[in-house]
Amino acid sequence: MQIRLTLEYDGTNYSGWQVQSGQDSIQGRIEAALGRIFATPVRVRGAGRTDAGVHARGQVAAVRLPRPFASDEMRRALNAMLPPDIVVLDAAEAAADFDPRRDARLRVYEYRILNQPMPSALERRFAWVIREPLDASAMTRAAREFEGEHDFAAFRSAGSDEKTTVRHVFASQWRREGERMLVYRVEASAFLRHMVRTMVAAMVAAGRGRIAPGATGDLIRSRDRALAPPPAPACGLYLVEVRYGGALENTTCAG
Amino acid sequence: MQIRLTLEYDGTNYSGWQVQSGQDSIQGRIEAALGRIFATPVRVRGAGRTDAGVHARGQVAAVRLPRPFASDEMRRALNAMLPPDIVVLDAAEAAADFDPRRDARLRVYEYRILNQPMPSALERRFAWVIREPLDASAMTRAAREFEGEHDFAAFRSAGSDEKTTVRHVFASQWRREGERMLVYRVEASAFLRHMVRTMVAAMVAAGRGRIAPGATGDLIRSRDRALAPPPAPACGLYLVEVRYGGALENTTCAG
Repeated sequence: MQIRLTLEYDGTNYSGWQVQSGQDSIQGRIEAALGRIFATPVRVRGAGRTDAGVHARGQVAAVRLPRPFASDEMRRALNAMLPPDIVVLDAAEAAADFDPRRDARLRVYEYRILNQPMPSALERRFAWVIREPLDASAMTRAAREFEGEHDFAAFRSAGSDEKTTVRHVFASQWRREGERMLVYRVEASAFLRHMVRTMVAAMVAAGRGRIAPGATGDLIRSRDRALAPPPAPACGLYLVEVRYGGALENTTCAG
Repeated sequence: MQIRLTLEYDGTNYSGWQVQSGQDSIQGRIEAALGRIFATPVRVRGAGRTDAGVHARGQVAAVRLPRPFASDEMRRALNAMLPPDIVVLDAAEAAADFDPRRDARLRVYEYRILNQPMPSALERRFAWVIREPLDASAMTRAAREFEGEHDFAAFRSAGSDEKTTVRHVFASQWRREGERMLVYRVEASAFLRHMVRTMVAAMVAAGRGRIAPGATGDLIRSRDRALAPPPAPACGLYLVEVRYGGALENTTCAG
């Protein structure tokens, strides 16, 4: 029996999603909780490998249960075992061959920037605080350059070795929340490692007036990693949703 | 020379605003930072004594400086010394007789409730998570009962000894943020200890259908502390603004 979990986490205190020896990971914590519940090792596979400090409001993971367990009880048992910064929002029975990574049709990330001249006590772990005023309309224009199918080789992380760096971005836009928060939302079939954070860094360079808004398009066409800025900080990034199957099926629980 | 500070803090890890021996308080942290800057003890007086776990986006405090110091440099020096969960948003020269508590004309608090059936990893320190569905319109009706001048004796904390328990509430209302967050905003000349949290608890009782919305008015008229529910959790409460002087002067920096 396989179960699909929808997860929210505060990534601040973790080395990222993926188990790495000697590190405290989200995957590791969930596997430890399942190990205690079933008294046998249980593996968890995630839809996306979020990096250290990156948050999730709708990460999806699959677990093959060693013995049958009602999905709602699974959710409650896991939430009772997990630390308070990792929460199972939903647990549902999945097809035996469900693969959260391969089957994902669409992934949605958001990135939060708090644009104010002083640091923030309340947002310090949940947004990138940028002190100099950003030109939001330049960032909006820069964001548009990412939409469509492109080779994102310039936006991958230095050491990555994906077979193809072509990705299809379905939506790429900024919105305001209150006077000082800028929220970027990007939807794509899949992302390269560090891709969203490098895109955000390039758009912030446009917002700061250091590059022209259209320069993000030039950067894409260059396919040259050396021309792109270093990625934006992890704390502003959220994996908000992973979609499967028909476009109408929506696995997030976010409001 | 006296300086007025506007402060943001994440109250999670503190015993509250006020210095108490053997406890880690916001006031104590600011006094320690000033002590290091001036190499002499410096006292800080706040507009409101927020309790353990209560946050602030616009607490106001006054400091009499042992020697002159440009207010903007004061802000930077304090932010360099303070832990990241306490931030000086603004520092400005104040009149020699400025008293942040006595001179305050209006205080504004907000209380955040996340109404969803599962816990929240990201909001666990910043909102009260209530699992059963709340009737927001009943809460809105209950909130209206608090507006105007009333004797809030039923809403004070058990051990408090204020001279008068009459307070004037200028505004008391709920708004939605997204699908699941309910935010209460209340403005008054001053508040009794635990008053906002006890009011929130009473409105939540109405939202849960345990009391009629109008029962919050009966509770006010009873002036009986024993009839009011225990206060709502501290983590949802924010001191967002303190206003001085003319109604047009606004000391907050919140967006």
